[in-house]
Amino acid sequence: MFKKVNQQDIDYLSSFISKDRIFAGDEVSNDFAHDELGGVEAKPDVLINVLNTEEVSKIMKYATDKKIPVVARGSGTDLVGAAVALKGGIMICTKLMNHILELDEENLTVTVEPGVLLMQLQNYVEEKGFFYPPDPGEKTATIGGNISTNAGGMRAVKYGVTRDYVRGLTVVLPDGRVEKLGGKVAKNSSGYDLKDLVIGSEGTLCIITEAILKLIPKPEYSVSMLLPFETMEKAIEIVPKLICSKASLTAIEYMSLDTIMSAEDFLGKKFPDTNYEAYILLTFDGNSMKQIEEEYTKVADLCIKNGAIDGYFVDTDERKKSVWNARGAFLEAIKASTDLMDECDVVVPKSRIADYIKFTHEVAKKVELRIPSFGHAGDGNLHIYLCKDGMDEKTWDKKTRQAFFLLYEKAREFGGMVSGEHGIGYAKKEYLLKQVGDRQIDLMRQIKKVFDPEGILNPDKVI
Amino acid sequence: MFKKVNQQDIDYLSSFISKDRIFAGDEVSNDFAHDELGGVEAKPDVLINVLNTEEVSKIMKYATDKKIPVVARGSGTDLVGAAVALKGGIMICTKLMNHILELDEENLTVTVEPGVLLMQLQNYVEEKGFFYPPDPGEKTATIGGNISTNAGGMRAVKYGVTRDYVRGLTVVLPDGRVEKLGGKVAKNSSGYDLKDLVIGSEGTLCIITEAILKLIPKPEYSVSMLLPFETMEKAIEIVPKLICSKASLTAIEYMSLDTIMSAEDFLGKKFPDTNYEAYILLTFDGNSMKQIEEEYTKVADLCIKNGAIDGYFVDTDERKKSVWNARGAFLEAIKASTDLMDECDVVVPKSRIADYIKFTHEVAKKVELRIPSFGHAGDGNLHIYLCKDGMDEKTWDKKTRQAFFLLYEKAREFGGMVSGEHGIGYAKKEYLLKQVGDRQIDLMRQIKKVFDPEGILNPDKVI
Repeated sequence: MFKKVNQQDIDYLSSFISKDRIFAGDEVSNDFAHDELGGVEAKPDVLINVLNTEEVSKIMKYATDKKIPVVARGSGTDLVGAAVALKGGIMICTKLMNHILELDEENLTVTVEPGVLLMQLQNYVEEKGFFYPPDPGEKTATIGGNISTNAGGMRAVKYGVTRDYVRGLTVVLPDGRVEKLGGKVAKNSSGYDLKDLVIGSEGTLCIITEAILKLIPKPEYSVSMLLPFETMEKAIEIVPKLICSKASLTAIEYMSLDTIMSAEDFLGKKFPDTNYEAYILLTFDGNSMKQIEEEYTKVADLCIKNGAIDGYFVDTDERKKSVWNARGAFLEAIKASTDLMDECDVVVPKSRIADYIKFTHEVAKKVELRIPSFGHAGDGNLHIYLCKDGMDEKTWDKKTRQAFFLLYEKAREFGGMVSGEHGIGYAKKEYLLKQVGDRQIDLMRQIKKVFDPEGILNPDKVI
Repeated sequence: MFKKVNQQDIDYLSSFISKDRIFAGDEVSNDFAHDELGGVEAKPDVLINVLNTEEVSKIMKYATDKKIPVVARGSGTDLVGAAVALKGGIMICTKLMNHILELDEENLTVTVEPGVLLMQLQNYVEEKGFFYPPDPGEKTATIGGNISTNAGGMRAVKYGVTRDYVRGLTVVLPDGRVEKLGGKVAKNSSGYDLKDLVIGSEGTLCIITEAILKLIPKPEYSVSMLLPFETMEKAIEIVPKLICSKASLTAIEYMSLDTIMSAEDFLGKKFPDTNYEAYILLTFDGNSMKQIEEEYTKVADLCIKNGAIDGYFVDTDERKKSVWNARGAFLEAIKASTDLMDECDVVVPKSRIADYIKFTHEVAKKVELRIPSFGHAGDGNLHIYLCKDGMDEKTWDKKTRQAFFLLYEKAREFGGMVSGEHGIGYAKKEYLLKQVGDRQIDLMRQIKKVFDPEGILNPDKVI
């Protein structure tokens, strides 16, 4: 069905893209054959480091004419195979489109190219007194990637997800047409919301080449607190109580001792406390230290009354580093603790998070698999890892299928969804179908066809 | 193309809907032939007061089979003809689906039927210590209507718009299928975002029969301040300064003396101050009175230094009533001040609001038309009214076309959009096309076809 890229195609592409930005065949590094998790592998025929919208437009027009598949890729940090060129073809890498184009202080927006890294954006705006609230754990992901999966992160409890901060997009459609969706405006009721359809569509509808993001003034103070508990049950049962208390929390993360120990091993750095089985990490922010103090005093009292052993401030530079570095390394640390792993990124209503975490322990016992997890207790989004730990392939396949079946079934039962922020990609298609049913998948397939009638954009993903 | 409803159809509909909820032909009140503005008039063949999703599903299935057009309607408070049955057929009125189904305190959500009024919802949740931030001026609008136009309102400066508070929807597709989009989850990256596509689609893709809305804890304090200025120029020039000051404002509204006088006449009630040409109304809210005080002291200083004559607190019950009743009555008051009017609801980047308001004055002079305006200075969304003031039809038509042409052209030039919150409906289709261009309109038309292949749902609207 699809055309393979040949020398003639490369000659054409070289007519408007300098040769040092085109890599074909064996020149394509193996790094581009897989994503962060590496669950599926395939190399594109050709890799192009694009510089601007015009180049993307020309490539897309040509690819549509010739029926060559195209996959856009940022840092490749995804976990579901979304950035892997399953059908070969052209991979458009946005890493050179990494410019922050404009900070508009009167409209509180920043305009960026898609290859800008999350950490680059956060540092840039914070230095100038502004704040980009979405805070996914993977700081080396690109903004284009964050938008394509509607990444969420730790501060979603208070601030929402990437979608809530995208005001406008410049996109290239498969036919090469360049369209601007939304803009700098704060309200918009002008026709169907194509912008939000593109957000989270994992590069299957069009290619994002510019984004206008909403900023807020940077909160003057941010305080984190680490609370140890004797058991994970006691730790997670605090979450609904915190939410019902109407406390204004920015982040509520949970972490278990075994995950913390993996991170210590991985980083070779000590965590401030490893005497208890489970920890809750809370963040508060705002412009009044007095109000934050009132808030955390109330919250700490509530936690101590409900089983917290103590409440440490994560205040010194050293302590901040040790806690946040560990939190940032959980995924890598679990990965390093086993020969292979697979993951599940379900989101459940936050009232059910305690029950759901307990359920993962039951599944681990039943299926006889190590299933560490950590994540965003305050917004119901868990990151759950199935670890192979040296077992043979056949047993591993059987056990992962069994575990995923149970985990996704329970998420649906709880009114949850397949993915909170990692997306569907290649790996979760079957579970999306089970989640939303054939009628919604049919609507999605037809929408895909509206944007991409030849089906060349990131084929075999999402639906 | 469409089938007219006949006795046989009514007999079928009566087989599952009690007769006291079906009105046919002359039984349909003229109130249902137009919306709040009354720019276009047409009666449905039959009006049905539905009770639940199942009834809507059966009606839709039948209507699709028979090719009968269907328009859903809440309170009919829209201004662009969206809730008018231009092609006759069935009007589904949701006014009896007005139940608040569940307040979920652990997940901070409220589940409602579409016919619940905005004021009913706001009162209900606020009594229980929660807050539904979207605050469109028209409190008798239904939540179904608010979602269908992605209504914004006054508190968008701080809290965003309706879209930001819709977590889940139950919708009936034209073929009668009932689908649940989203849910109680706070994050979601599971396939294309059909929910956001439906929000703002003005009843053209499916019919909303239930909504799960996000709430926040109610801010403990809310303070408003009224600032008079000698001229509108001076008043509106304060807006970018306020935004650059990084002050945390909930609402920034502007109002001119002539609009205030119209409201005084209309209500027969005095406004606290009518000595100056222009006023800015600011609202602050939060949980710390001390922080609010710091905030408004800083803001009042800035305003006084930049031309504000004074700063009155809108604090006593009497003053609150007189200011907010006037603000709530602006639309009605302008309507009462002329024999006919038309409106324009553009949104521009907030940095351009001062220039844009000045431009409306230039247009008024050039076209020789009275063009009062008021609105949401803090988020760039203006409500602009063209007043007929007794002129003959031909002149009026010519002048409104000329004025709209200039107003929309300037909005585009400023990077604005056709509609901030009123939607496109029937009246603004031509301007939407000019705004987004033929390629995006084509995408929207094809998406419409995916949902509604027979084109029976609210025909001739949006695209």
